[in-house]
Amino acid sequence: MLGQLTRSPASLAGLRSSTQLVARLSQSSRPVRLHRAITSAVSQADQEATAASTAAAVQQQQQSSSPDGTGTQQQAQQRKVGAAGPRTSSKEMVDTSPPRGTRDFYPEDMRLRNWLFGEWAAVAQLFGFEQFDVPVLESEELFVRKAGEEITDQLYNFQDKGGRRVALRPEITPSLARLVLGKGKGLALPAKWWIVGQCWRYERMTRGRRREHYQWNMDIVGVPGVEAEAELLAAITTFFSRVGISAADVGIKVSSRKVLAAVLERYSVPPENFAQVCVIVDKLEKLPRDKVEAELAALGVSADATEGILSALSCRSLDQLGELLGPAGHDALGDLRQLWALAAGYGFQEWLVFDASVVRGLAYYTGVVFEGFDRAGQLRAICGGGRYDKLLGTFGGEDVPCAGFGFGDAVIVELLKDKQLLPALTQQVDDVIMVMDESLRPAACGIAARLRAAGRRVDVILEAKKMKWAFKHAERSGAARLLLVGGGEWERGAVAVKDLASREQTEVPMDQLA
Amino acid sequence: MLGQLTRSPASLAGLRSSTQLVARLSQSSRPVRLHRAITSAVSQADQEATAASTAAAVQQQQQSSSPDGTGTQQQAQQRKVGAAGPRTSSKEMVDTSPPRGTRDFYPEDMRLRNWLFGEWAAVAQLFGFEQFDVPVLESEELFVRKAGEEITDQLYNFQDKGGRRVALRPEITPSLARLVLGKGKGLALPAKWWIVGQCWRYERMTRGRRREHYQWNMDIVGVPGVEAEAELLAAITTFFSRVGISAADVGIKVSSRKVLAAVLERYSVPPENFAQVCVIVDKLEKLPRDKVEAELAALGVSADATEGILSALSCRSLDQLGELLGPAGHDALGDLRQLWALAAGYGFQEWLVFDASVVRGLAYYTGVVFEGFDRAGQLRAICGGGRYDKLLGTFGGEDVPCAGFGFGDAVIVELLKDKQLLPALTQQVDDVIMVMDESLRPAACGIAARLRAAGRRVDVILEAKKMKWAFKHAERSGAARLLLVGGGEWERGAVAVKDLASREQTEVPMDQLA
Repeated sequence: MLGQLTRSPASLAGLRSSTQLVARLSQSSRPVRLHRAITSAVSQADQEATAASTAAAVQQQQQSSSPDGTGTQQQAQQRKVGAAGPRTSSKEMVDTSPPRGTRDFYPEDMRLRNWLFGEWAAVAQLFGFEQFDVPVLESEELFVRKAGEEITDQLYNFQDKGGRRVALRPEITPSLARLVLGKGKGLALPAKWWIVGQCWRYERMTRGRRREHYQWNMDIVGVPGVEAEAELLAAITTFFSRVGISAADVGIKVSSRKVLAAVLERYSVPPENFAQVCVIVDKLEKLPRDKVEAELAALGVSADATEGILSALSCRSLDQLGELLGPAGHDALGDLRQLWALAAGYGFQEWLVFDASVVRGLAYYTGVVFEGFDRAGQLRAICGGGRYDKLLGTFGGEDVPCAGFGFGDAVIVELLKDKQLLPALTQQVDDVIMVMDESLRPAACGIAARLRAAGRRVDVILEAKKMKWAFKHAERSGAARLLLVGGGEWERGAVAVKDLASREQTEVPMDQLA
Repeated sequence: MLGQLTRSPASLAGLRSSTQLVARLSQSSRPVRLHRAITSAVSQADQEATAASTAAAVQQQQQSSSPDGTGTQQQAQQRKVGAAGPRTSSKEMVDTSPPRGTRDFYPEDMRLRNWLFGEWAAVAQLFGFEQFDVPVLESEELFVRKAGEEITDQLYNFQDKGGRRVALRPEITPSLARLVLGKGKGLALPAKWWIVGQCWRYERMTRGRRREHYQWNMDIVGVPGVEAEAELLAAITTFFSRVGISAADVGIKVSSRKVLAAVLERYSVPPENFAQVCVIVDKLEKLPRDKVEAELAALGVSADATEGILSALSCRSLDQLGELLGPAGHDALGDLRQLWALAAGYGFQEWLVFDASVVRGLAYYTGVVFEGFDRAGQLRAICGGGRYDKLLGTFGGEDVPCAGFGFGDAVIVELLKDKQLLPALTQQVDDVIMVMDESLRPAACGIAARLRAAGRRVDVILEAKKMKWAFKHAERSGAARLLLVGGGEWERGAVAVKDLASREQTEVPMDQLA
């Protein structure tokens, strides 16, 4: 496909800037009518984009594909690629961007990701959870639900060469359910599992949304009581505290779908419509109220019931909820009061905010639901979760009580950045070794081997370089020492060791080197 | 799609045993002619399998889809699913297997994977390499090469909803090249990068081969000399040594493609055929010699040249190679002699075996190539790598010298298992907390929070359980202590602490608990 631009429009699909496009078209070996080619290539690239103009589409792609949401680095790279084009005359340059809406992690980005994932892992371990993993590609049937959730409408799905319908997972919970079903009675309950995995959605690209993100999940399988939800919320707040976020920065809205269930029962809405009603009322923050009312009406929910639902959702205190629901609310209220009591025990009650309007957009929740939010109100939900006691049943298995949460890597990084809580992370190297005389290179390799065996992280300079370069390089890599192999020191059976903090140089005999 | 078996043949694609199949068919709400249904379902499921009989196809699937190659656990699960079928009358059971040829990692499998990946990470860090990451889904064009490599023939590719050709990566090197090109002159060279990532291939399922594996890669970008290859081999042997494998167990065959290049030049084979010749002669171990000769002839390589190539490949000593190639071999010999000298410096020369027949099956290698093998000759290659100085050029960029290796997670685990070097890994929990009186649960939550803040990994029992269950559970989770909140101790402001190793129980005042 390389070098055959006009024959492979698909290879144009990732083009990001008109500069780059023109650079590539101008390398084509066949004459093309430039204007038409640009138009068709851009239309190919953006056929599902909502943007009206090409320029807007290009700009939004640049913003949404950046690793950290700022787009600066990615845009700089784009320009570089465009500029590099004309230098290489014989071959068409491949698209150096990752697939539309996805991210690359250069080492400087990866350090931050490793730090975040490391904090997530540390919390999961403090809570005695066990890690699991599943393939990022699953059978499509795991994610096909009919409640109209955004997450299943945006399935990143394909047909494979064997004719099977497969999908890059949009979420991890269905795979966890599959594993629990797969073990059957062989799984010791309760199971407390965690995972960090990449999730995908195929949606129209809009500002600031990507097609993949990483998600931390913790799930408790086999515990019917809100003790599970309390433990999960303790894990979330422990994470926040570890990274420097306080209850003044972030709150967690908590409610229970049992509130809605009680209202629906009172108005004789059939239970099989429960999930769909939840998905619809979850849109209250995004859609105008009359739109939500219309969707409920279309589902056959009476105006009375809609009024009851919306009134229940406006509750902001447990006592008010108790009055509203009467005996039908006994279950929901009991759960929530117990949850608050446990939160006080753990010491995280100040994070919790009772808010009956929290429903969450996933069809499978059945009980307590919760959602982390920034109190400044600038960001989308930080994390969310709840109880899903019926998911295994919808997969044809026996129901097992489950609760869990998902915590994405995007919003938390925005929040940490806003609050200047992102750590300054540098490369982690202890020693840099520089060979002063190439005949001594094997000896220098031996020194590196010895230091590494002692646990030191050693970067060997693998070419003949100038001393000035070596110093710069050692400082940039955050090394503590620069070791120089050669010169007078070597003749005396020693190595010159430069301490990069104090800038002092000492001569260390080979047998004392550590 | 759930519950509609006869309408969705795709959902049958993952059926693994005839028991399960019959169980599912018998739940179908529509009458089906059983024999025809089984035949067509199995044919759908296995349309790309080579097995002649259904039984063989089922058996091979069970063997190839197990996490550890033994299949025992997976088969047990399959039986469980089949047996569970009739219990759930209203819903068809989803397929609880992961997609064909892929693995789930239950916590017990994940511990082993984490250990292995942890060793890989530790080695990369000791060598001063920086981690990066790229999307598992890439543009197909990154992997389309015309040299007939197995890896590109088995591309796990799709068309996405935007009409783009995308692929789950079969290898990571092209993505690394994309990142290097993307940074252009902004990338400080040399760059030393590592990654562990999942790689996919879509191939006919045969015994013991899977459609995904994880691969550890280390690459050095920007160093033209064999100092890079030596450093990479030092990392590989350091890893082997850390996990208990010696040079008596494993060797690394080393050669250089410059040997072949010299031979081809002597026989006037055009350089553009170099990659294809390499891919063909790499098959010498798998195909009969006359088949390889025929493939070379089809490429226009003369019988003389083929004779020269095969004779050069039979060399097993550097001196012999020097005689064979004469002045044309100066470059290849110089590289290899220098590599041995550096290996002696590092102290890993005993691992190296010069073997000119090592070519490696990837088109893009240009210089030194190497391949780790078990000296007992029981297993496929353990790892492989080499120099690829021209890959960036084929992507339309400026060439930058590169060398790297890939090291899969499958063969090494087989080897470690054979040698009984797999570590016994248990869950890692310090304390288990048991509430003796539910009214004390909030207090117990507070104790958990305090211990966790002090860095202890605490598993809270979230339901009322019997003491016997708690002991068993604490022991199974490998905890050091079981803390009992309640009873007489609690009245005295203390907690009963059972040391699970010594079986001794002590009373610890709350304020001394740590």
